Amino acid sequence: MTKKAVVLLSGGMDSATTLAIAKHAGFDCYALSFRYGQRHSAELHAAARIAAQQQVAAHRIIDLDLAGIGGSALTDPSIAVPESPSEGIPVTYVPARNTVFLSIALAWAEVLSAQHIFIGVNAVDYSGYPDCRPEFISAFERMANLATKAGIEGQHLTIETPLIQMRKADIIKTGIALGVDYSQTVTCYQADESGRACGRCDACRLRAEGFALAGAPDTTRYATSEPDSTDR
Amino acid sequence: MTKKAVVLLSGGMDSATTLAIAKHAGFDCYALSFRYGQRHSAELHAAARIAAQQQVAAHRIIDLDLAGIGGSALTDPSIAVPESPSEGIPVTYVPARNTVFLSIALAWAEVLSAQHIFIGVNAVDYSGYPDCRPEFISAFERMANLATKAGIEGQHLTIETPLIQMRKADIIKTGIALGVDYSQTVTCYQADESGRACGRCDACRLRAEGFALAGAPDTTRYATSEPDSTDR
Repeated sequence: MTKKAVVLLSGGMDSATTLAIAKHAGFDCYALSFRYGQRHSAELHAAARIAAQQQVAAHRIIDLDLAGIGGSALTDPSIAVPESPSEGIPVTYVPARNTVFLSIALAWAEVLSAQHIFIGVNAVDYSGYPDCRPEFISAFERMANLATKAGIEGQHLTIETPLIQMRKADIIKTGIALGVDYSQTVTCYQADESGRACGRCDACRLRAEGFALAGAPDTTRYATSEPDSTDR
Repeated sequence: MTKKAVVLLSGGMDSATTLAIAKHAGFDCYALSFRYGQRHSAELHAAARIAAQQQVAAHRIIDLDLAGIGGSALTDPSIAVPESPSEGIPVTYVPARNTVFLSIALAWAEVLSAQHIFIGVNAVDYSGYPDCRPEFISAFERMANLATKAGIEGQHLTIETPLIQMRKADIIKTGIALGVDYSQTVTCYQADESGRACGRCDACRLRAEGFALAGAPDTTRYATSEPDSTDR
């Protein structure tokens, strides 16, 4: 019997690579995305394209209104997306986002009897995000095994983080080797409706740098015109 | 400065009592409810009434479509709600529900700079639910303190579970002493639109037993007619 895995799929390059890794490892993949009030809904179209390309067993998009809670430049239009690196925890950090996403993935894993949840967190490029660190992932895994029927009945659940110690260039090299089509992924914090990138935000700069360091052609689709002023 | 607390408020008697305890302890209370595909949406009207009676600082209802994930009699119409006690983990268990709710409470707590989250879990009457046990709560708290900016910056977050070791009768006595109006709460798994209880499901039986053992009048509003057959 094929092993099942729930894979968090944002539509960005990290989660697309993570899905390819899970599939390559022989898992039947159940992709999970969220409509959580993010400005960059182009990500969700990207997630659907990637899920189809990778022939997942199922792809669910869960509606979850985190914008009602506020607190991040990604969900709150009154907070500007930065275009230069900032000290400490970035304003694009969404409070407890990975905790929330992993919790819902856990619920689905329990229903599916899946014992693996894949998440494309990265402790190298996102060192400012508390919920991307290995110690957070371990604590979540421990909690998850106490939270569920399956855990109580002795089926150990694992949170798989294949990218956690990779640099962006290694992620890109790995993905290319596994056939990931990065032109379909959206990284930009302020991508336009069709998923074209601004080329200027923190996320765009890290992505472009990654392609350069990987020695791979940058297949990102960039917007040629200026982004809408309300997005800056 | 008044301390802030996020209080999970389902509209049932346990969460109403928990809110009264938090308020009595001097917290500014931010009540959080979920529209998660539950059949018993009457709970949400109850939550709004209780939040207003207890004069909370704010009450948010978050939309979250857990029905898309399935797996519980509470969100999946194809699974019947039991009317007699069952062995092991009940079918009314919603996979990872407390994990999901606490995670979103954590997100709001971080935005509010609240260091306390109250949840009315009870390990006595709900011993079959893995996510009502003290070891789950401790593991969640530990994870939460690694998940957030506040945790990293040294502000300890506590998950408060004042009811965890109480019997139903003690919960009711405590609530009555604090002025909780239990006629406004909804416990029944298949309450009608106006919040009237079936009087037959597991939850109704525990509730009625609680009033009897507390020596308090049962203020529950019961439906006099038979519940709709689709609810059985």
